[in-house]
Amino acid sequence: MTKFDEATQAIRVDETTYDVCLDPGYQIGGPLNGGYLMAVLLRAVVDDSPFAHPVSTAAQFLKAPVPGPATVHLDRIKTGKTAAFTRATLVQDGVPQIETLVTTATLTNAEPVYADGPAHPMPPLEECVKLPDPKPESNMNMNAQVDLVFDPPTLGWFTGEPTGRPETRAYFRMAEPQDPDPYVLAVAVDALPPVVFSAGQRGWAPTVELTWHMRAMPAPGWLTVIASGRLIADGWFDEDAEVWDSQGRLVAQSRQIARVGRG
Amino acid sequence: MTKFDEATQAIRVDETTYDVCLDPGYQIGGPLNGGYLMAVLLRAVVDDSPFAHPVSTAAQFLKAPVPGPATVHLDRIKTGKTAAFTRATLVQDGVPQIETLVTTATLTNAEPVYADGPAHPMPPLEECVKLPDPKPESNMNMNAQVDLVFDPPTLGWFTGEPTGRPETRAYFRMAEPQDPDPYVLAVAVDALPPVVFSAGQRGWAPTVELTWHMRAMPAPGWLTVIASGRLIADGWFDEDAEVWDSQGRLVAQSRQIARVGRG
Repeated sequence: MTKFDEATQAIRVDETTYDVCLDPGYQIGGPLNGGYLMAVLLRAVVDDSPFAHPVSTAAQFLKAPVPGPATVHLDRIKTGKTAAFTRATLVQDGVPQIETLVTTATLTNAEPVYADGPAHPMPPLEECVKLPDPKPESNMNMNAQVDLVFDPPTLGWFTGEPTGRPETRAYFRMAEPQDPDPYVLAVAVDALPPVVFSAGQRGWAPTVELTWHMRAMPAPGWLTVIASGRLIADGWFDEDAEVWDSQGRLVAQSRQIARVGRG
Repeated sequence: MTKFDEATQAIRVDETTYDVCLDPGYQIGGPLNGGYLMAVLLRAVVDDSPFAHPVSTAAQFLKAPVPGPATVHLDRIKTGKTAAFTRATLVQDGVPQIETLVTTATLTNAEPVYADGPAHPMPPLEECVKLPDPKPESNMNMNAQVDLVFDPPTLGWFTGEPTGRPETRAYFRMAEPQDPDPYVLAVAVDALPPVVFSAGQRGWAPTVELTWHMRAMPAPGWLTVIASGRLIADGWFDEDAEVWDSQGRLVAQSRQIARVGRG
């Protein structure tokens, strides 16, 4: 069991309730990473489902839960032959923090009937770059849990040279060796700096809603995350991420809508 | 009040319940169109919200409701300064048919900070083509409610010449003159033939989950819907649609995951 497996553990209490303990290791600035929180929720949903994979997860981020105990409440709305439908809520101190609708099914990694390539080319790993380690007082604890190696232009914002377009691209893996699985994918779709940084925006950019689809079980090795946005307007922006595995298979797709930071 | 406004009416019964009547005019083959059903649900959600626009709607399609009376049950989970979060369920004969999480906010159509162009060019309207009228016995009643004029290659499947890629592109408007609004957008994101038809697949392709984001109030006139998919595998496919208004503004984005037809 890796530290990530432990940090996302969900212990069944009764028919509809799981106990979880939110790990401070996934703080980013102060709040806990949204992908990590989805992974915790999904542990409970999949444990309760007759199917193996979270094919669709739609999450509303209502509040920012703090590290420590919380519960996941499940309502399995329908169980069909191909898929099951669950509403799952992460609750802390009696207050709903994240509301989700999850569809579980079992993927077989069959040969695709049709498969498009990545939305953007990615240079080889050895030409990509890391962000410098954050200052300890910044509470960017999550940086120690994941390895992110960026396509250089999409880190231009860090040295005052943003590309001018909302985009972030990086190789991703858990820092502690671990094969990617559905829960690692939940982290991957929300692990990169907000795409708006490359468009010249800064500050905390809270996710309001994120939907992601798992498309196949990822092969061992690095994942590639290619994220971009189409529109920044009215204080809202979209962020689309596609995740490819080391075999070149599309394993996850996500879109979130978030608020532009003010800081 | 247009026929569409009437067909999507939601009448408040009490704090958390709205009565609706599902209109047979939106049948496609037999089942009712998913976009129409979302429009009905959203009438209730927005009526109940202090905000004007459904900025995010995530819907799980559990069952195919039939024309006739149904109810919408609301649970306003949180109401903040910028956005409200509602869970809304369409129920017929006591059975949940569609489960949604909706985020409402008020968009102002401010000048965008960043705006990308359409994912694919679109020929002018006069170079686009319509599908022939369906046979009355096919129950494609919805075809009478909307005007769809297609980018010719994306209708190639109809004459046995699919492009080989999952894609559909069309100009869209309600057949009865009506300015597009959030409810018309809900229809627009799910009004086109499934993108997999262009990839050589046929048959009923039921939506399992669809999330869409409203990005701006559309200007009067035709909408342009550009839809495509990335992967067809394991019996699942994704369909991404972007909706542009007559002023060239991105007004909606959606992604659905659906089952490949067997018929």
